[in-house]
Amino acid sequence: MTKHHPELSLLFHALADPTRRSILTRLAERPARVTDLSEPTGLRLPTVMRHLSVLEEAGLIVTAKDGRVRTCAIVPDALEPARTWLDEQRSIWEGRLDRLDALAMKALKERKQ
Amino acid sequence: MTKHHPELSLLFHALADPTRRSILTRLAERPARVTDLSEPTGLRLPTVMRHLSVLEEAGLIVTAKDGRVRTCAIVPDALEPARTWLDEQRSIWEGRLDRLDALAMKALKERKQ
Repeated sequence: MTKHHPELSLLFHALADPTRRSILTRLAERPARVTDLSEPTGLRLPTVMRHLSVLEEAGLIVTAKDGRVRTCAIVPDALEPARTWLDEQRSIWEGRLDRLDALAMKALKERKQ
Repeated sequence: MTKHHPELSLLFHALADPTRRSILTRLAERPARVTDLSEPTGLRLPTVMRHLSVLEEAGLIVTAKDGRVRTCAIVPDALEPARTWLDEQRSIWEGRLDRLDALAMKALKERKQ
């Protein structure tokens, strides 16, 4: 229950910023050069680079440099640990509802006897 | 695409800490008093209170005070916006794979002609 997932912390931290989420959404469509990400958003290059570095550290994107051009691409499976964690929480919660249902049914039965 | 979801940023920020994730997992099982959350983990009360405040601000938990006892409970649906966002990213990505498949099939057809 109290397993440590440092990568999960990095992942959620990377997703906690609207600019980083919009960069990810953009890259989910197709890979892009850093300038492609900077120009339409009006963000300065150093700002974009800083966000890309957080995304790369979290394993959400890869970047490759060809001469002076750096291209970024999404790592699609990288969001899976976040999804798995959310699913686990839901199943714990649903298990709890089941238990409450079971208790309610037991109480009903006892009242009928 | 670049919709702003301040609540999504608060949500992912709240989930970016292992202690807060373990508190949520604990509360998914059943509501708990603040001391129930502090004692088994060895965390000091002010630390637990600080984490609870982040979770409450993100809408992930509710707390209620009865005399000197504060009880915390999870808000199960509060994780849904995070799940929805992850689903959206996956569908953009899968849409892109479909497009790549379509291009690959088109190229194959042209080679066969």
